[in-house]
Amino acid sequence: MQGCAYIDGAFVAPEDAKISIFDWGFLHSDATYDVAHVWQGRFFRLDDHLDRFERSLKALRLDPGVTREEMRSVMHECVARAGLRDAYVEVLCTRGMPTPGSRDPRSCTNRFMAFAIPFVWIADPDKQRRGVNLIVSDAQRIPAQSVDPRIKNYHWLDFVSGLFKAYDRGGETVVLPDAQGHVTEGPGFNVFAVFSRPGAAPLVVTPDAGVLEGVSRRTAIELARAAGYETQERPLAADELRIADEVFLTSTGGGVIAIAQVDGQPVGGRAPGAFGPVTTQLQHGYWALHADPRYSEAVRPLPGDRA
Amino acid sequence: MQGCAYIDGAFVAPEDAKISIFDWGFLHSDATYDVAHVWQGRFFRLDDHLDRFERSLKALRLDPGVTREEMRSVMHECVARAGLRDAYVEVLCTRGMPTPGSRDPRSCTNRFMAFAIPFVWIADPDKQRRGVNLIVSDAQRIPAQSVDPRIKNYHWLDFVSGLFKAYDRGGETVVLPDAQGHVTEGPGFNVFAVFSRPGAAPLVVTPDAGVLEGVSRRTAIELARAAGYETQERPLAADELRIADEVFLTSTGGGVIAIAQVDGQPVGGRAPGAFGPVTTQLQHGYWALHADPRYSEAVRPLPGDRA
Repeated sequence: MQGCAYIDGAFVAPEDAKISIFDWGFLHSDATYDVAHVWQGRFFRLDDHLDRFERSLKALRLDPGVTREEMRSVMHECVARAGLRDAYVEVLCTRGMPTPGSRDPRSCTNRFMAFAIPFVWIADPDKQRRGVNLIVSDAQRIPAQSVDPRIKNYHWLDFVSGLFKAYDRGGETVVLPDAQGHVTEGPGFNVFAVFSRPGAAPLVVTPDAGVLEGVSRRTAIELARAAGYETQERPLAADELRIADEVFLTSTGGGVIAIAQVDGQPVGGRAPGAFGPVTTQLQHGYWALHADPRYSEAVRPLPGDRA
Repeated sequence: MQGCAYIDGAFVAPEDAKISIFDWGFLHSDATYDVAHVWQGRFFRLDDHLDRFERSLKALRLDPGVTREEMRSVMHECVARAGLRDAYVEVLCTRGMPTPGSRDPRSCTNRFMAFAIPFVWIADPDKQRRGVNLIVSDAQRIPAQSVDPRIKNYHWLDFVSGLFKAYDRGGETVVLPDAQGHVTEGPGFNVFAVFSRPGAAPLVVTPDAGVLEGVSRRTAIELARAAGYETQERPLAADELRIADEVFLTSTGGGVIAIAQVDGQPVGGRAPGAFGPVTTQLQHGYWALHADPRYSEAVRPLPGDRA
């Protein structure tokens, strides 16, 4: 397995990146994380990911024991040591272990870790060409009143359960509704619907609540606004998704990716592989930003590689 | 750290019990578990725990790769190897790792693990003597529509968030309501309220929904019924908990434990350490069952120790 991890203050091979099964990051999923990506040797919007990670740490009262700049350096060094041009780079912090016999999270020493592995697509290249077959689940997303989805977390059993049921129905991935039947998010992605309007620019809608505020989501919103589309962050009914002219997902694992079918029905009545103009435009815009120094930074070479 | 773990088919010391940070049991909290306890050399209601663990595995489509009797043997051997008379014994199964680059849980090889550590009290002996100071949280328990609490899981961030807020208010532990303001459960325990009734036996109430069907909970219900108390599993409003004559929690980590205060107010107007008669009776009844062979089985000696 290619990659590099940082754990207990040392850089190690992925197969040596292990945590104690007694760490509450595992036993209580008491942890937070963030994932940035590197494309063609450049981190994309790394500061946005670090901003969100710091907000998550604070909300969960986790202290990683490293500064923001140390986190940034560790992420750079993981990628450089792994020798990856395109990478999926995760930082995470677990609660750690309590003093023996205690069940008090305040007695834990929190633990910071990171890893870089080869870029992971949320949908493989073949699915990207065809467009993804999305199922609207009947399992509900964990509500924000229980676990705030803006604090990036590993509570995924609702997604996993939804995924298995989506596979049963011939789907490839899943989006979960909330208790009111509004669309929230899928495992690792936000969802957008596009509505054509006669005589007006298309309307672009993405859910405003019950979702992670994705960095790719924000990028898509910014690109849509810059292109002159009306863009709304508001509740999106599952039935609206089913009648939208275009549907796409956004994820660090691939940017803007077209949804070809919702619940087995072709989106916008299109043939597989034929995507709508807004999806295509935002997809191109997304990748074009990756070389822009306002949005990206080059992976730093290892000290020994500087010449 | 005293104890013994079973992982990757081998018995190891607790400090060597580690899992890959890439296991989805960690990265997606995609896992289930169960915890039995050993008291004075005997497992308590082990088959009830194994029944529930098998139901959880099936619901999550996890295959531990071992039979029920192999699980039982591993649990016995962990305790025997650790040399523990009183132990907390956990079995768990994680999704494992997907094939590289895949995000499909069906590509994972699930992993069975177990460990025995010294008995962990849900409240330390001092708190048990005083009775626990319980706070009703304003964070809501993850609803069953998202993650079924009857499938024992590590999704605890709602509890952790509730715990920190309870500490802020001077409490020692927390119980979470559902969206309707009914009490559900706390971190590792079920909750009971007892209402005295003039001229009638006390009424014992515990929530019927949104909770783990605890083995200690079942034991308390059975004991209460055997004692002739009317026992109801039904929605329990937080306000009912505040006016109950007695409140107690049930947990594998200590059986029946008295709650002395709810939101800082003494339960039943009692002085610290003075508990109600129902709580005291059920507590004694709980421990008395531990020597009963209908409810318990002796930890098997290691092969070399048989003589």
